[in-house]
Amino acid sequence: MVDKNIDKQKIVIGIDIGGTNTTIGIVDFKDDLIFENSFLTKADEGEDTFTRLLIRQIKEAYSEFASTYILEGISIAAPSANYLTGIVESPANLKWGNVNFIELLKEHFQVPVVLINDANAAALGEQKIGVAKGMNNFIVLTLGTGLGAGIVVNGHLLHGENGFAGEIGHTIIEKDGRQCNCGRRGCLETYVSANGIKRTVVDLLCNYNDHSEFRKMDFENISSKLITELALKNDSIAIKAFEYTGEILGRALANIVAYFDPQAIILSGGLANANEILLEPTLKYFNKFLLNVYGGKVQLLNSNLQNGKAAILGACSLVSAKSNNTPINRDYLIEQDYIIFK
Amino acid sequence: MVDKNIDKQKIVIGIDIGGTNTTIGIVDFKDDLIFENSFLTKADEGEDTFTRLLIRQIKEAYSEFASTYILEGISIAAPSANYLTGIVESPANLKWGNVNFIELLKEHFQVPVVLINDANAAALGEQKIGVAKGMNNFIVLTLGTGLGAGIVVNGHLLHGENGFAGEIGHTIIEKDGRQCNCGRRGCLETYVSANGIKRTVVDLLCNYNDHSEFRKMDFENISSKLITELALKNDSIAIKAFEYTGEILGRALANIVAYFDPQAIILSGGLANANEILLEPTLKYFNKFLLNVYGGKVQLLNSNLQNGKAAILGACSLVSAKSNNTPINRDYLIEQDYIIFK
Repeated sequence: MVDKNIDKQKIVIGIDIGGTNTTIGIVDFKDDLIFENSFLTKADEGEDTFTRLLIRQIKEAYSEFASTYILEGISIAAPSANYLTGIVESPANLKWGNVNFIELLKEHFQVPVVLINDANAAALGEQKIGVAKGMNNFIVLTLGTGLGAGIVVNGHLLHGENGFAGEIGHTIIEKDGRQCNCGRRGCLETYVSANGIKRTVVDLLCNYNDHSEFRKMDFENISSKLITELALKNDSIAIKAFEYTGEILGRALANIVAYFDPQAIILSGGLANANEILLEPTLKYFNKFLLNVYGGKVQLLNSNLQNGKAAILGACSLVSAKSNNTPINRDYLIEQDYIIFK
Repeated sequence: MVDKNIDKQKIVIGIDIGGTNTTIGIVDFKDDLIFENSFLTKADEGEDTFTRLLIRQIKEAYSEFASTYILEGISIAAPSANYLTGIVESPANLKWGNVNFIELLKEHFQVPVVLINDANAAALGEQKIGVAKGMNNFIVLTLGTGLGAGIVVNGHLLHGENGFAGEIGHTIIEKDGRQCNCGRRGCLETYVSANGIKRTVVDLLCNYNDHSEFRKMDFENISSKLITELALKNDSIAIKAFEYTGEILGRALANIVAYFDPQAIILSGGLANANEILLEPTLKYFNKFLLNVYGGKVQLLNSNLQNGKAAILGACSLVSAKSNNTPINRDYLIEQDYIIFK
């Protein structure tokens, strides 16, 4: 029997599941993203609606490439992803129960499947093609609907004993602070995330009398993008919101440095698109709160990759590096670091 | 020439420099601590006074063993120790400048010398002979004059990019909180340490009218040992002090778990000698503040080793494992993990 696929080029499908949007990407073996499409996650409609939509979207995306490429594997980046089990476990910002994405995808596609925490995938992507190239000790914070963290120490992703290290979004930064979707109070992500800064805006509308465009808007229509735009137009509440976010983030980053002593901390995700508007106050408070021994030793960087691209490329690199059977040039891709469900 | 030393057994000298006491131990190659002696660090008298005293004490200790044993090396565990340079860099609780302990000891003793952070040494000791035996992901907190942390991930000590990871005592737990020796405010160690609980006692004397033995004492005469004793005698301020310390420590531990997802967190050092009196409130608040995904997965343990013993045995193991030239059974003892200055 002749293998019809022998001349076909290999591709990997990468999926980045976010609290608001889900992105499907197709990556070829030159690490080029040759296809990308996003759709609304609509987390409120439950996991079954989402998984049906996801399967349909993957099939649609792949249909364009099936005749000329061969699918090597699928890699899914998601919050609360347990890479050991292949299960997304009760994600705080998606309001789902446990979802076994490996089982689900293997029903529909007969290829190896990997599940990876979304922020871990972003960290791998930043190291592969982003600002963390060549770094062995760094942390990527994804400031989306929630706050995720991918932590690389000694060149390895930090997974912890049960695969749940790096829940920095759920460290308590304010005692008795804002209510969090996780059921507790004062978690970092209730302040520092796209959702967190929305909450800050309405808090400021309550505490200050400043004139602001936000006084004419529903809470639900406020977004981190809009807050950024209004900050650029000198809306005083928007500016105060970034100042407040920067103060909390700066203090959190100083704590992160005291734990990990990293070369760099990289901000990515929707809220990080504010660039200097967020970076400037963050850096001011970071330097104020940093223990002197770390002074001048840690870079605070903004990702220069489009949202979701780092996560998709990072996630896909896990499949391609393995299935390609070529020498692996990043030593964190050892067998025990990742479980590829074949 | 006949080597007179050929039949002599090898020993390693281990030194644990603490904010209050310094301990010298001698460990043989069966890992038995065959000698131990402590003296007051008297940090206020400056580094020169201390180093002169240290050299004298080491020589005195070794003189008893010199005729029957051969000295293989010296290992020093100290706060703010940079294992890469061999320098103790401006330790917050010792009020010294930089001290190059490697240079100092090599002047007097012609043997290999290792410098290791004291909490890292305690972590190695706990893994060798203590409650962390067989664990690959755990954290040791040393609650002495300050609060140190030794962090083991994937079987390796976490050093960070510059050798200064694990400064958990200097993470900010209370915004605008107590003044810290590091020059900032609200560091964890200003609350959770032998010194921290002293400060809590006087804070409680101010805020409550409870009758208490502490009302008859100078601040300087209060110690964590005394607070423990009075808590056992139902002194209401002492009991409240442990409750308050447990609340802050419990919250800090919940944050530590969210970063590292460890198997266990181990409490050691002077304040941890309070055992259940500290563990009980700590566990109560730890469970209250813990993110649900970690529920039931993390052990909170008390060290069962005498103060300083873990650090001395851990520090000595670095020298003995190398110089012994036997197979090394802990994979963190790879070349790049430690620099032995020969």
